Amino acid sequence: MKTIGVCLSGCGVFDGSEIHEAVCTLLAIDQAGAKALCCAPNTPQVEVIDHVKKQPAGGPARNVLVESARIARGEIADLSTVKASQIDALIFPGGFGAAKNLCDFASKGAACTVHPDVERLTGELLKARKPVGAICIAPAMLARIVGKLDLHPKLTIGSDRQTADAINKMGGQHCDCPVREIIVDERHKIVSTPAYMLGRGPAEVFEGIGKLVAEVIRLADAT
Amino acid sequence: MKTIGVCLSGCGVFDGSEIHEAVCTLLAIDQAGAKALCCAPNTPQVEVIDHVKKQPAGGPARNVLVESARIARGEIADLSTVKASQIDALIFPGGFGAAKNLCDFASKGAACTVHPDVERLTGELLKARKPVGAICIAPAMLARIVGKLDLHPKLTIGSDRQTADAINKMGGQHCDCPVREIIVDERHKIVSTPAYMLGRGPAEVFEGIGKLVAEVIRLADAT
Repeated sequence: MKTIGVCLSGCGVFDGSEIHEAVCTLLAIDQAGAKALCCAPNTPQVEVIDHVKKQPAGGPARNVLVESARIARGEIADLSTVKASQIDALIFPGGFGAAKNLCDFASKGAACTVHPDVERLTGELLKARKPVGAICIAPAMLARIVGKLDLHPKLTIGSDRQTADAINKMGGQHCDCPVREIIVDERHKIVSTPAYMLGRGPAEVFEGIGKLVAEVIRLADAT
Repeated sequence: MKTIGVCLSGCGVFDGSEIHEAVCTLLAIDQAGAKALCCAPNTPQVEVIDHVKKQPAGGPARNVLVESARIARGEIADLSTVKASQIDALIFPGGFGAAKNLCDFASKGAACTVHPDVERLTGELLKARKPVGAICIAPAMLARIVGKLDLHPKLTIGSDRQTADAINKMGGQHCDCPVREIIVDERHKIVSTPAYMLGRGPAEVFEGIGKLVAEVIRLADAT
């Protein structure tokens, strides 16, 4: 049975993991007969957004690992303890958390830096020729990591020009892609799908994520 | 196009809505070509649980509507404003929030009281012969509401004897049911499924919830 790492970034589209994307990823992994290993960095969230007002909520900081545990039903590992040898592949759901807590792409764009453990584990996976999947905005973070490794994989965040340009600047090769489809870079074993960068509801998002998970597992089998 | 109310109770299995169940409900509604109207009471959560430690977190209270908005991606109505005329059916996902924030079944058992707006809206639906779905522990709350209305529908929370006995005491007729199946009370248009009361992962939970949503929509068509 394959074990697929799922790296979360909080719990909620505006300051953490996009919840539908995260659950669709876990659902597709379970439907495929694989096992998910959820993980997240044990670090404060950059901010807490009131999801009704869509404004900063005030109040105390929240912790990325603790909030991500809500999606994982308590079964989650501190990202700093996860090694590539434990997993057959790694998937990053989207949401602003991927661009605020796992890296600072939301504020810095193409000049962003990536959380050290995200960079370390992703680098270990790619070096071991294990597949990496990135959903929604997460491919922008992945572009920064692979650019530094002088890899230039095909990636998609859908069709947003500004984000696509930033991906190309960081070293990726952006390919436009509709929400129900995926972009596969066979050579680097990297798969991406636009999800809520384009999606209007969970059904079409789940279709794209289902294809991403199936392809990630196929590439893991080919390791 | 049918509009299905989805009443949330926070965001996280131990103090709010069970996230997988809530997203599976929204996914199945979207896949069926219906529209979801998410709602939640604008009231403080009874408690905040650290989902890593599975213990009370301390810190300030959180608001049920504001946290539920994370699952709804910001598109959510204050339950007090929702009327039965706006929706064709109403579904309650589970999680401890359903037994702590929507009613106090978690602490009071069969002597529980239900949040006034949950009781009002559910009563309006049943009176209008519109279907109600309840997932996981939510059928216990529903038993309290229907018992006061002197209805005695078939309900399931799976096979837990203590909870089943409480449901029977409050006025429901508990029927054991496996996770991938549903119990349908045609007469009262009430559908229930055990979900994570029995489920070991999202795939089997989604199977039961998918059947519940399909049946709720079928019963709404029959109105």
